[in-house]
Amino acid sequence: MFDLKSYLKARAEEVNSALETYLPQDGQYMGNLGEVMRYSVFPGGKRFRPILTLAACEALGGSRATAMPAACAFELVHCFSLVHDDLPCMDDDTERRGKPTCHVAYGEDTALLAGDGLVIYAFEVAAKTAELASAETAVRVMRELAVASGHEGMVGGQILDMDAQHHGADKESLLKVHRAKTGALIRGASRAGAIIAGATPEQLQAITEYGELIGLVFQITDDILDYQDDPDPISFPGLYGMDASRQMAAESTERALACLQSFGDKAEPLAALATYLLSRQS
Amino acid sequence: MFDLKSYLKARAEEVNSALETYLPQDGQYMGNLGEVMRYSVFPGGKRFRPILTLAACEALGGSRATAMPAACAFELVHCFSLVHDDLPCMDDDTERRGKPTCHVAYGEDTALLAGDGLVIYAFEVAAKTAELASAETAVRVMRELAVASGHEGMVGGQILDMDAQHHGADKESLLKVHRAKTGALIRGASRAGAIIAGATPEQLQAITEYGELIGLVFQITDDILDYQDDPDPISFPGLYGMDASRQMAAESTERALACLQSFGDKAEPLAALATYLLSRQS
Repeated sequence: MFDLKSYLKARAEEVNSALETYLPQDGQYMGNLGEVMRYSVFPGGKRFRPILTLAACEALGGSRATAMPAACAFELVHCFSLVHDDLPCMDDDTERRGKPTCHVAYGEDTALLAGDGLVIYAFEVAAKTAELASAETAVRVMRELAVASGHEGMVGGQILDMDAQHHGADKESLLKVHRAKTGALIRGASRAGAIIAGATPEQLQAITEYGELIGLVFQITDDILDYQDDPDPISFPGLYGMDASRQMAAESTERALACLQSFGDKAEPLAALATYLLSRQS
Repeated sequence: MFDLKSYLKARAEEVNSALETYLPQDGQYMGNLGEVMRYSVFPGGKRFRPILTLAACEALGGSRATAMPAACAFELVHCFSLVHDDLPCMDDDTERRGKPTCHVAYGEDTALLAGDGLVIYAFEVAAKTAELASAETAVRVMRELAVASGHEGMVGGQILDMDAQHHGADKESLLKVHRAKTGALIRGASRAGAIIAGATPEQLQAITEYGELIGLVFQITDDILDYQDDPDPISFPGLYGMDASRQMAAESTERALACLQSFGDKAEPLAALATYLLSRQS
């Protein structure tokens, strides 16, 4: 039987080891920037986005090694977004993953620049796909990364989220916020893995839908877990109610699993990931 | 005789028109982000970096149209850097080019995200090189963009500059700061144009040296112009003295012109640009 826990642990270790190799040491043109970038990437969380890239690539018969730069690029963008989200002008958070946030540890100016350095470096890392796959594939992956991260993806979603916090939101605008803010990167990370594996248009479509659906489940579960401590009215339980939110998550998971049918056993990790996202307690 | 003023005007208009086409309108996934990104890009300055990309491409026999996405990508990175530089945690500037800075006009959180949106979008625009030249060329150009902008280039230079402001600097560290902070993007913009034109290794080397030298001249002249109003000790006139700074700028311009010899008449714009940077009064 497939053991998701061991799978996630092994993949997270691979990702961490690749990030360790890719991330720069302090050099003559960067002062302590290498240290600050590492501080913002390690020890890290579940490495969920890069694992998705690797698992999507394997589901389509590709090798994890070929997808590793792209996987790490999506994680670097995720880490960049956390550093900038934590800044005083955004969420003004002082702690993350049990340690001081980047700007508390190194100052606001340095944290701003470390975030900038991480998002730019993500593209340099993604470019390594050219040597492992092809230049065409690398360009496609870098486009996915930009579209998922930028004004029509994560960054645009953050703007919509700020609007929603100020002016309120209905069900439709909540969906829009999350489709962009958290969904786009999860969708893009999945697509990148499929593209690297040489997906046909139909396969890419299936993985895209899978990514969209589990992105939604990810956010609903997040909202449900947060709602117990902080009943935010602009959240899935706040706008849909707890029962309808749980039902939406369960149905989306079913649909995500259906997207994987044509890939057979090789999609077992993707399927287990989807089921896990629905039932996770943290 | 070559008329640099008309050349610069015509090229800046082409760049503005391309940027106008590329830059997103407000869309359903971005709130007012399109407006804020445009606010940070227009009316703009001299468009010096993208013009360098176009001129370097033409000097090697390439077409300006092929180099336009890459040219605009370098300008978008330049605009991103201005938005983040102006933030309260950095230079805390309230006015730029005669209008309120982005965070004064739209708030600090929105300005932070607009900068993030611009730098990410730069890579999306640069990816258009794949359709106009080749995927291989696009990957090379996107790598140039990342290296020039990131931790070993502009962003790293900003960290070094902050160190220098806090702890002082000698001649060598001043050169290091500027080679990264302003030099890397100017060098990279020149190289991108040459790469798109299909430069041989020797040609690329000549353009690289040209870019490095005019980047230095750009900064020395900037420092000399600023020194009259604000005699900053950490500047070329402050550390080398006014006469030695002027001499260094003149010698670097001579050397930059020498790099262009093998390109003949087609390099006239690059040569005129170099001479202009030495003598500019604003």
